[in-house]
Amino acid sequence: MKITLAQINYHVGNFEKNSNLIIDAIRKAKNDKSDLIIFSELSLTGYPPHDLLEHRDFIEKCNDYIDLVARECRGITAIIGAPSINRKSSGKKLYNTAYLLNEGKIRDQINKSLLPTYDIFDEYRYFEPSTDFKVIDLKGKKLAITICEDLWDEQGFENEFSSSRMYSVSPMKELAKLKPDIIINISASPFAYNKTENKLRIFTDKAARYKLPVLMVNQVGANTDLIFEGNSMVIGPGGNIIDMFPAFDEHIASYELSDITDSQSDFKYQPDRIEMIYSALVLGLKDYFDKMNFPSAILGLSGGIDSAVCLCIAVKALGAQKVRALLLPSMYSSENSVEDAVDLSNKLGVRYDIINIESSYRVIIDSLSEVMKGTSPDVTEENIQARLRSLLLMSLSNKFGNILLNTSNKSETAVGYSTLYGDMAGSISVLGDVYKTDIYKLADHINKDLNIIPQSIIDKAPSAELRPDQKDTDSLPDYEVLDSLLYQYIEMQKPVSEIKGHNITRDLVKKIINQINRNEFKRYQAPPILRISSKAFGIGRRMPLVGIY
Amino acid sequence: MKITLAQINYHVGNFEKNSNLIIDAIRKAKNDKSDLIIFSELSLTGYPPHDLLEHRDFIEKCNDYIDLVARECRGITAIIGAPSINRKSSGKKLYNTAYLLNEGKIRDQINKSLLPTYDIFDEYRYFEPSTDFKVIDLKGKKLAITICEDLWDEQGFENEFSSSRMYSVSPMKELAKLKPDIIINISASPFAYNKTENKLRIFTDKAARYKLPVLMVNQVGANTDLIFEGNSMVIGPGGNIIDMFPAFDEHIASYELSDITDSQSDFKYQPDRIEMIYSALVLGLKDYFDKMNFPSAILGLSGGIDSAVCLCIAVKALGAQKVRALLLPSMYSSENSVEDAVDLSNKLGVRYDIINIESSYRVIIDSLSEVMKGTSPDVTEENIQARLRSLLLMSLSNKFGNILLNTSNKSETAVGYSTLYGDMAGSISVLGDVYKTDIYKLADHINKDLNIIPQSIIDKAPSAELRPDQKDTDSLPDYEVLDSLLYQYIEMQKPVSEIKGHNITRDLVKKIINQINRNEFKRYQAPPILRISSKAFGIGRRMPLVGIY
Repeated sequence: MKITLAQINYHVGNFEKNSNLIIDAIRKAKNDKSDLIIFSELSLTGYPPHDLLEHRDFIEKCNDYIDLVARECRGITAIIGAPSINRKSSGKKLYNTAYLLNEGKIRDQINKSLLPTYDIFDEYRYFEPSTDFKVIDLKGKKLAITICEDLWDEQGFENEFSSSRMYSVSPMKELAKLKPDIIINISASPFAYNKTENKLRIFTDKAARYKLPVLMVNQVGANTDLIFEGNSMVIGPGGNIIDMFPAFDEHIASYELSDITDSQSDFKYQPDRIEMIYSALVLGLKDYFDKMNFPSAILGLSGGIDSAVCLCIAVKALGAQKVRALLLPSMYSSENSVEDAVDLSNKLGVRYDIINIESSYRVIIDSLSEVMKGTSPDVTEENIQARLRSLLLMSLSNKFGNILLNTSNKSETAVGYSTLYGDMAGSISVLGDVYKTDIYKLADHINKDLNIIPQSIIDKAPSAELRPDQKDTDSLPDYEVLDSLLYQYIEMQKPVSEIKGHNITRDLVKKIINQINRNEFKRYQAPPILRISSKAFGIGRRMPLVGIY
Repeated sequence: MKITLAQINYHVGNFEKNSNLIIDAIRKAKNDKSDLIIFSELSLTGYPPHDLLEHRDFIEKCNDYIDLVARECRGITAIIGAPSINRKSSGKKLYNTAYLLNEGKIRDQINKSLLPTYDIFDEYRYFEPSTDFKVIDLKGKKLAITICEDLWDEQGFENEFSSSRMYSVSPMKELAKLKPDIIINISASPFAYNKTENKLRIFTDKAARYKLPVLMVNQVGANTDLIFEGNSMVIGPGGNIIDMFPAFDEHIASYELSDITDSQSDFKYQPDRIEMIYSALVLGLKDYFDKMNFPSAILGLSGGIDSAVCLCIAVKALGAQKVRALLLPSMYSSENSVEDAVDLSNKLGVRYDIINIESSYRVIIDSLSEVMKGTSPDVTEENIQARLRSLLLMSLSNKFGNILLNTSNKSETAVGYSTLYGDMAGSISVLGDVYKTDIYKLADHINKDLNIIPQSIIDKAPSAELRPDQKDTDSLPDYEVLDSLLYQYIEMQKPVSEIKGHNITRDLVKKIINQINRNEFKRYQAPPILRISSKAFGIGRRMPLVGIY
């Protein structure tokens, strides 16, 4: 039996495009004499469709497209992912389903049993969990078809304080009783640089445990904040990785089942963390612009490292012709900030303009003088500069259709070291899930081949340049210390008493956590953030605003 | 047996305050010789605690406070709501629990079975559903203790297209087998003006069906966007409402069980819709400021009806001394806009200041002239005015600690008739869940007793006043038509083909729905919105940004 795996970049809700991609792949697989082609979870709708699933016409339209795809399945069987209607008298309206299509129609349906409902996942919001388990006979082989989380039954929690497993059901244990010959898993498993090893182990362990080959097909590409790395896998019954699909790229390949069963090859996947993050951000940004049909991007280039790295990523993702920079110096900008920004723009071949904000700033301050009589300068005047910059950036955005990129990093977003409606503005945050210390590593990575980012940008002490001689370290600890503390609190959810490390005192922990929590109201209004970690700010982290903690 | 119901306003995560409120009520009930006092769902943490539930130290702290409250329970039994740790080897980390406290300690725990995971609810994100059902013996009576959704098993969906019931388990059916004498329901059921009747019926139906009294204790007060109306109920075994607690206010009262069983009284609750909405918004705003510990509010007073109604609500909620208005006229403001705004401020006794934005606007336009050479005025220049206003409002906010109120209504928020970082700015949106046609009704309601809002504000045609002679109807249908269409799509989730009404054509429906969807990216960055309907923008409505539909 010949089996094709199709790792494809789907666009949420775009049935026309998704079905075309699926049908093209089916036709090619048929030409290759493949018996079975496998697509990823919710491939027809794209993942995640969110509350579109609550709209009846969305589901009806989806059903029409399933029929359309099914009509292509003659002489070949396809497994595609899509929601299906729950026809029972009770339970959630839908199932998260793997459709088995052949002979021009829907032959069978397998419904997802374990519904991830944590972090960025909301599946129990829409889907009824399946409690039926069956295998599918195809050409004399029994297929155990599972949907993503169905194979993740043994995962624990980030932060364990009670039960050690999230699920009390093990779909594969049930399916094993039915003596399958092969395990298929259709996934939509988003990228997180600190989850890669864990993900590999989940699948290789299952193969080894049940002594069965595992074919895992993952979605690739980004839908808004979520980036899917692909990395679909063919695993032998010994738990050996026979083939792994590329990360962050579409790919289709076919395998003889007997080759999989016999192969002794064992691929070791040891990706470079920073390279992964870089590729993820490039794809995430590219897909955001492609799928939103945005023509071009703009960003404020300050001469600092965050906007420099962001510009390099934007140029890689969109091309220099589709990116423009705006330099917005004030009386507090250091001389070489403008020089460095111009230098970088020229090296990248990006159009830049310079608007000095000083005269506008002075008139605004003047118009406020009556109301603010008797007060002293404070953070207000700093925020006016930041908001004036975003006003000017948004003006160009409105006038020319350049979409504003937000260049804030995760460290400053965490502690609220940023101005709401000022440097927090933007259609998408490119670096909001990247800690400052990793921004430097990204800069090194970018400079490895071509020395694009001027060394003076990398070397200068981080500063918002909103008052004379301001430095980030005036109010924050060193970023090495801060980032370690933040990671332990945000990603690892450690209690205060367990957050430790070089120069991390109990007082500092309390102060920083307090700062993180006090700034929830700012992050509530932040743009979507390209997610590269297991816990990004945004829909995956839901902290109360009104809350004492 | 004497039973006390305590309808209390809790603050999320504020164990100190919540436990004090609970202990005070327990002491009072003990003095009243009450045998049992009942508090609402998750009363100790406040509802909704969101991802605080994922933090181990939060749960440990909660456990300490449960012990503290338990020590007060001597000679009286208390039922309080709090999370409890799931000690089984698998499943979610927590249960949503009703703790039965007496003799100074935890006597028993009842865990919630039906976990709402839709709209604003995310309970399966944190909690394992209980599948055990038991009654509690207290002084010879058997108590069937249920937690909120546990009695909502028979609810359908807003938009039915498959199964007609959300749940396949009926906790009360299970409990009925154990022959209870009384049904207790501890709730945290948020207000929605279009859900009141439904809510009454749920509880009266259960009482009548099982011929048992129902005691329902609901949370009152607001936590950020969610407003809880209270309206706790004592229902007789005939389904007759014996007593209903006030809406939007704390209240504690005691009842003899025999009186409840015997009473024939049947209270008819027929609240006025607009009055409910008004009271909800006043409480919502008051609690947001109280619980965030914000000193005072500011808003931009344009002379239009939205900001006028918002100002009246703010004065009612916070007092005139804690509210200030900023008038920000431009060359496009009509003469009487400023007059009307001044008039209203004076009537309300609110401090106002006037800053004409024209000079700042001209300098900004001037600083952009080089970059924008050869372009014609368009929405860019309109947005600059809106953003300049928010910059000035935020400047006062930063300087004086006045928190900015957002005054956008639901109709314009839906179709994106607003400027991101401009009039969309604010710490909280007061009217973002109120359609424009209801804003007029709120104005009439406010004017019923005292004629505060000038008639000219009510009479003038809605306009953003961002270019000469601009009217909302230049680009939008009449608000009567628009709001009907929006309600059918947003609250009722009707398919395009079923949205109907006066002057609603198929083309208009498609145009408006397209406009709603295209503006998801703006709403993603909107402030939290005080929720008064069954489907508000915000965490209860999760539509994809990158998505074709």
